[in-house]
Amino acid sequence: MAHAKEALCVTQTIHTHILTNGMVLLAEPMQSLQSAAFTMRLPAGTTYEPAERGGLAHLACDLVVRGSESLHGRAFVEALDRLGINRGEGIGPAHASLYGAALARNLGPALRLYADVVRHPELHPEQFESCRALALQEARGVEDDPAHMLYDALRERFYPPPWGRSDTGKIPDLESTTLDEVRTFVARTYRPNGALLGVAGRVEWPALVELVEELFADWPALPELELAAASPPAGYAHIPYPSNQTHIGIAFAWPAYSHPDYFQAWGAVGVLGGGTSSRLFTEVREKRGLCYSVHATLESRGKYGGVLCHACSQADRAQETLDVMLAELVRLGQGIEQAELARLKARIKSALIMQQESSSARSSALVQDWYHLGRARTLDEVGSLVDALTHETINAYLAQRPPRDFTVVTLGPQPLEVRSGVS
Amino acid sequence: MAHAKEALCVTQTIHTHILTNGMVLLAEPMQSLQSAAFTMRLPAGTTYEPAERGGLAHLACDLVVRGSESLHGRAFVEALDRLGINRGEGIGPAHASLYGAALARNLGPALRLYADVVRHPELHPEQFESCRALALQEARGVEDDPAHMLYDALRERFYPPPWGRSDTGKIPDLESTTLDEVRTFVARTYRPNGALLGVAGRVEWPALVELVEELFADWPALPELELAAASPPAGYAHIPYPSNQTHIGIAFAWPAYSHPDYFQAWGAVGVLGGGTSSRLFTEVREKRGLCYSVHATLESRGKYGGVLCHACSQADRAQETLDVMLAELVRLGQGIEQAELARLKARIKSALIMQQESSSARSSALVQDWYHLGRARTLDEVGSLVDALTHETINAYLAQRPPRDFTVVTLGPQPLEVRSGVS
Repeated sequence: MAHAKEALCVTQTIHTHILTNGMVLLAEPMQSLQSAAFTMRLPAGTTYEPAERGGLAHLACDLVVRGSESLHGRAFVEALDRLGINRGEGIGPAHASLYGAALARNLGPALRLYADVVRHPELHPEQFESCRALALQEARGVEDDPAHMLYDALRERFYPPPWGRSDTGKIPDLESTTLDEVRTFVARTYRPNGALLGVAGRVEWPALVELVEELFADWPALPELELAAASPPAGYAHIPYPSNQTHIGIAFAWPAYSHPDYFQAWGAVGVLGGGTSSRLFTEVREKRGLCYSVHATLESRGKYGGVLCHACSQADRAQETLDVMLAELVRLGQGIEQAELARLKARIKSALIMQQESSSARSSALVQDWYHLGRARTLDEVGSLVDALTHETINAYLAQRPPRDFTVVTLGPQPLEVRSGVS
Repeated sequence: MAHAKEALCVTQTIHTHILTNGMVLLAEPMQSLQSAAFTMRLPAGTTYEPAERGGLAHLACDLVVRGSESLHGRAFVEALDRLGINRGEGIGPAHASLYGAALARNLGPALRLYADVVRHPELHPEQFESCRALALQEARGVEDDPAHMLYDALRERFYPPPWGRSDTGKIPDLESTTLDEVRTFVARTYRPNGALLGVAGRVEWPALVELVEELFADWPALPELELAAASPPAGYAHIPYPSNQTHIGIAFAWPAYSHPDYFQAWGAVGVLGGGTSSRLFTEVREKRGLCYSVHATLESRGKYGGVLCHACSQADRAQETLDVMLAELVRLGQGIEQAELARLKARIKSALIMQQESSSARSSALVQDWYHLGRARTLDEVGSLVDALTHETINAYLAQRPPRDFTVVTLGPQPLEVRSGVS
């Protein structure tokens, strides 16, 4: 893979700075770009929601970015918009993520606005009612989105609670949530210890450290939050849904991002379900025409790793689709071929190059790495780990830990029969 | 806007080469990147489908990329995958688009494979049956996707036929389509005259011209295809759908990409419906909490331009949502404010910078420009056009041509009352 290494030869340096209150700043200067991007993660994800308050993390995040104590409501949003920040928010199990990208010279002013809003959010009663109405709208919209419903149900059944929670939340929970509950949640979880800030693009590291110290150094740390995980329901569940289509979801445990065998396991899943010559794509879609799209995705929620497979087929071919998918999962345990891995490596090399050209992608990868590994890796390092994979090392792993104990959820007019390996 | 101009100061050069058979090659070298991307457009979009063959263009494209006469089926797909091409296909009204991105050194081999497959597709009977089964799956999936159904219905009602056709097609049409019909369609529309190839990233222009001449110069031109447009249905239509949500779509005519007033009209629509401080977002979502997302998008199909607005709200608030949206469309005719345009310009400057950092985005923009304008513009030129906009020039345009004659489609449990300006 000498060629690929040569192609990744742009100088990559990652800087790290930890504030005394625990907040972590990571940066990767990319001087060929004109843009800069940031990803701020706060330990305010769904796992910290109290029982029967599903959706609180999302609602809190939406309300926080509505304005600060000094810049109310529209004034705050318009200040961000005047900087041309292309931005968004997302809620995961562990974190609320606030991210954005802009011209490099607007990064500093943007961080100043975000520091203000996460430290001193306005949390106005009127805005709260508007945010809750929107959260309810979104939760009701999921009822018209069978693929979304399936993924929510599959994660809830597969991950040890509370790690499988949906970010959209539950309608009765949202209806009962009060502004005081949002205030309490924000007071506990919008905090420097556990917070990560990743920056990538055209940035000067010394000036960035100085700015971040100025904005966040006097933000007081809070007591750590405890999280206990329960046993997941697992097994098979069917959700009746009036349609001619059946959605099929299958999940099984697989090494998480922080696991020493992660790359072996990741390679195996890439052969199973990544790209147009993957096994699932070939067997389910191309050879049999059973469904338009079929995926297998490896995801990590905290220390829990899993593979989530999804397909949607005509109801009268759904049993065949499920059978073929399960057969492919079992067959994966028998190993992969050298040519399959070679194609996967080629695809990943391209993906790494694309990531190295995107400030947004890098700022997000920095904090992702730090959260799971306690350090951030350059793409050169990731490329070397991919290079080191062989079909022999992957097959040695698969022989010891084949896919099994499947959690299955179907959604459609009729339940299916799960003929092998359900957990 | 001196700052923004300074930020866009990376050297931008666009090369053009027209083959004697009419095929157009466009390239923008981006030497700071390691990647290269291409977008190939063939005049094989939905407008060329015969009557009662909705979905034929999509089906044909899916089948074409399944293999060539010399590299059958999986062998073709695996050859692409060995190059690590991150690729896809899309069908529009005028074109089938084949696009991909990869390490720069893999661009040439990828173009060689694509030249082979578009000039000599295998079109195998077995693959045809598999592709048709998938196309039917996808068309049935739309029935579970109310937003998709709404957009399809809105475009069909708004654009002069055949310009409003859905790429997904119609189930009875797909069921009756034969392989011979696909062969005839491909023979007429996969052709050099009317074809565009845009390349951006780390490329050497002289070598690229040489390669493209070698691959395509002896591809014979075909007679031009005629297209007549009929009158659109327009007016209001309701589609009954069992849900607690109502989807609302509104369309109105607006200057197309090639129109001299395009940028004035584009600025007005940006203030109406682009970003988090746009009027629709503020009035419909933030102030009233009527729906989670609300958009206004300007699109061009050939010489027909239109603004498509979409919102989805709880059924019992849908009438209010529609009323507020229509009121905002009418209010837009009264003009915009300087501060609104300033925020829009800041957002667009960021977007232009991001585009200048992405080889995929640039390769696509090159062919988009050529199709509508007969030439491709650098982002510097686009930036200057944005800079030149003022609220006075936009308001002068709006005073002459306010939004009106609305085409409205709703989808949900109950029809609504359209209280103003329906076409």
